[in-house]
Amino acid sequence: MPRPTEALLDRRRIGRAALALVDKKGDFTIPELAKRLHVQPSSLYHHVDGRADIVELVRLEVLNKLDHTLLRSHSWDQGLAAWARSYRSVFAEHPAAIRMLATAPVRSPELIDAYEGATTALLEAGFPREQALAMFVALESFLLGSALDLSMPEVMIEGVDPERHAVLTGCIAALPAGISRPEQAFEVGLLALLEGFRASLGTEHARGAPR
Amino acid sequence: MPRPTEALLDRRRIGRAALALVDKKGDFTIPELAKRLHVQPSSLYHHVDGRADIVELVRLEVLNKLDHTLLRSHSWDQGLAAWARSYRSVFAEHPAAIRMLATAPVRSPELIDAYEGATTALLEAGFPREQALAMFVALESFLLGSALDLSMPEVMIEGVDPERHAVLTGCIAALPAGISRPEQAFEVGLLALLEGFRASLGTEHARGAPR
Repeated sequence: MPRPTEALLDRRRIGRAALALVDKKGDFTIPELAKRLHVQPSSLYHHVDGRADIVELVRLEVLNKLDHTLLRSHSWDQGLAAWARSYRSVFAEHPAAIRMLATAPVRSPELIDAYEGATTALLEAGFPREQALAMFVALESFLLGSALDLSMPEVMIEGVDPERHAVLTGCIAALPAGISRPEQAFEVGLLALLEGFRASLGTEHARGAPR
Repeated sequence: MPRPTEALLDRRRIGRAALALVDKKGDFTIPELAKRLHVQPSSLYHHVDGRADIVELVRLEVLNKLDHTLLRSHSWDQGLAAWARSYRSVFAEHPAAIRMLATAPVRSPELIDAYEGATTALLEAGFPREQALAMFVALESFLLGSALDLSMPEVMIEGVDPERHAVLTGCIAALPAGISRPEQAFEVGLLALLEGFRASLGTEHARGAPR
């Protein structure tokens, strides 16, 4: 006979519990997850299709605040920028989950829809079909690294020697006020990446590459 | 009386053992590390100055194959590109260490030298002092995310529906042969980032921004 809590078990609750474990130690095991949910491991399998399925529930839980329609509601670059800022923010709340999610294939139809939206926006903007997915993945790599950087202290280099590291000392002294170090790095990188994409678009247009 | 192995304890050995633990589970504790080295925790403190010092030894161990002089041996963009390809490769061998190292301040003089080299190259190229560090950090964020992507399977999206995801299906079919998926994404992103930096240089020059 199922215990009372088992009746309440659903995919959302499993995803939440798995994310809580991943937030603590970067990973989870099925026995740990079952224990946290006060059920037998076998009960989990009434709701999920193995470990990879649970990893995907963790991904959905992390990304549930992210609005993928941003990708299609503006020009390609404004859409990517808005989506990117939001994506970095949601991952910054779960730095320990980044490695797991960055290395496990995406499987949820609703997340694959985001890739469909992004590639559609890029193709409509004139980017070549063979490059659109690579551009989006490159952006994601930058965003995941930038999300980790938000857990790095504001002072990210300790023991800079004003003589041995004179140029660096000057650069640190010149850092703009009113914006945090990781925020500035993120904005500089995001704008550069989008500008670089834009420049390749010009090239493609100029040489009339087939699309 | 110290045990035989204690006589052999040195900072390099401590760094190697800590990295082995981090490779397995993304983190280490002092008792685990002492156990692995067959010493008492107190013996470690004859060689290291606390946990942050050990984290830095892990960083040195990961980066010991990286040649930071690349940053200063070419034009700024060729130097950054060569250094970047090498940096991604060394981190790709230690994906579980990425989070720890991306969120702990850099403290080793020899690694701070790399920041000095990078900022010097960027300033000599004409980039403004207030932006050089942000550019380098943005590049590092991209590289760490790209290193994680090398642990993602070649097929990174499972269950693409040819009807619901028609554009994405076309993009995947059009992926270039002869280059792996993560490799293509990395090169596309790296070149875009550098091109975006180059474009901002033009702007700075054009408007004669103070440096």
